[in-house]
Amino acid sequence: MRLTTLRRDGETQAGRVADGEVVLLPYRDVGELLASGADWRERAAEPTSPSVPLAEADFAPLTPHPEKIICVGVNYASHIAEVGLPTPEHLTIFAKYSRSLIGAYDDIVLPPQSRAVDWEVELGVVIGSPVRHADAEEALAAVAGYTIVNDVSMRDWQLRTSQFLQGKTFEASTPVGPFLVTPDEVDHARALDMTCAVDDTVMQKAGTDELLFPVGEIIAYVSSIITLVPGDLIATGTPAGIGAARKPPVFLAAGQTLRTAISGLGEQANRCVAG
Amino acid sequence: MRLTTLRRDGETQAGRVADGEVVLLPYRDVGELLASGADWRERAAEPTSPSVPLAEADFAPLTPHPEKIICVGVNYASHIAEVGLPTPEHLTIFAKYSRSLIGAYDDIVLPPQSRAVDWEVELGVVIGSPVRHADAEEALAAVAGYTIVNDVSMRDWQLRTSQFLQGKTFEASTPVGPFLVTPDEVDHARALDMTCAVDDTVMQKAGTDELLFPVGEIIAYVSSIITLVPGDLIATGTPAGIGAARKPPVFLAAGQTLRTAISGLGEQANRCVAG
Repeated sequence: MRLTTLRRDGETQAGRVADGEVVLLPYRDVGELLASGADWRERAAEPTSPSVPLAEADFAPLTPHPEKIICVGVNYASHIAEVGLPTPEHLTIFAKYSRSLIGAYDDIVLPPQSRAVDWEVELGVVIGSPVRHADAEEALAAVAGYTIVNDVSMRDWQLRTSQFLQGKTFEASTPVGPFLVTPDEVDHARALDMTCAVDDTVMQKAGTDELLFPVGEIIAYVSSIITLVPGDLIATGTPAGIGAARKPPVFLAAGQTLRTAISGLGEQANRCVAG
Repeated sequence: MRLTTLRRDGETQAGRVADGEVVLLPYRDVGELLASGADWRERAAEPTSPSVPLAEADFAPLTPHPEKIICVGVNYASHIAEVGLPTPEHLTIFAKYSRSLIGAYDDIVLPPQSRAVDWEVELGVVIGSPVRHADAEEALAAVAGYTIVNDVSMRDWQLRTSQFLQGKTFEASTPVGPFLVTPDEVDHARALDMTCAVDDTVMQKAGTDELLFPVGEIIAYVSSIITLVPGDLIATGTPAGIGAARKPPVFLAAGQTLRTAISGLGEQANRCVAG
């Protein structure tokens, strides 16, 4: 099953994608559907009407208001090598605020105070049921589905201090979506191809099977700290190919389009505009 | 004016504190009151009934579900000295998730996997109106009021990786409240006395006038990154006296009571219990 969140008449609405249509569901977004109860899959699958053509969809952030956005750092060997860090013993996590999320085809606002806006294709995980003190198997059972996140990062602000947050949470900068794809459709995203391109130049190319801490371990680890709840969004980390690690460094410029794709999950295309 | 959030019959409810009573307001918590519109002060001041005796109040986290919890690091010269860092050029910020918040007299759960649960008395700021790209004066005008936060930190987890988040957001660990005190009552918290004690031993003692980046600058800085909205909570940083910097280090143990106070804002008393 594929779910999405659309903009319609100034509001947002959840929908199920099928046969080139988005069948509208009586929830404001995918997060609200997931939080509506353990039987969300059955209710999402019910025939409802009306529907809108997929080709006319205006995609909102897939989960516009998650209680938590959890970003994993340094989780691909190739990226760890390019930034010159040792292989981590523990999972690195940091946060992002929901107001930084945008839809899969929305513009990315380049803030005037940053000279180093960079890309990070990442496998996104959306939680479907509460999970606390889980082992890796219980953790995977709590996954509602997978999506695409580009953890767009203002490197100059990210590295101003020891804490990444301020470079990771600029307003309207992080595309998430367009779809939540349930685990059965993509074998829990164990081996999907990821790419990130700026206009026609491919910058990142990797497989989700290269994840150092895989999805089940990430969820189990975080659940030892705090309860994960339906709608929570996890960005699992990025592979090699970021702009800051190139020689010389390359960053996004107004007018360019950032194209992010994961096989089986769809694609994003976000035009960069001056803020 | 003093506002608070109480637990009542399994729900929470906002209230105004006056004459030893809490006059109940028709909002689920202080955050919902603040988000209800620019005229929240007038509506909070309206005579309503019923009320409950302040002495019988069961305090919930003052703002149980803020869109953002923004924590400031290394913001007192005395604390910067004790942890051996240089004076920062830029504000350091990190996040915390709302599920870590507890009420002013709730138990602090000591997680079994941490051996280093530490205290951090902090001036808390609650935002009352949307603010973006503000100067320091506009920033101060967006403050709804001030409160007490103890940014309880699991130091071993905080320092496992470069990013503090995982040591700062354990479930049910961060007291916030009991009151939101409006700026007029405490001169924008410019010179309040802060203390933190473990049982009867005072561990931290400082004044909010020692803040390196004061409240207006903090809000202005964050608002250059992302819009702050009503109910957002900012913990402004802690002064010297944390347990980890003592020789030898001292941490919280089950059975102890953490006592946190700021003059004019009230006090917290949180018993530590094994998780």
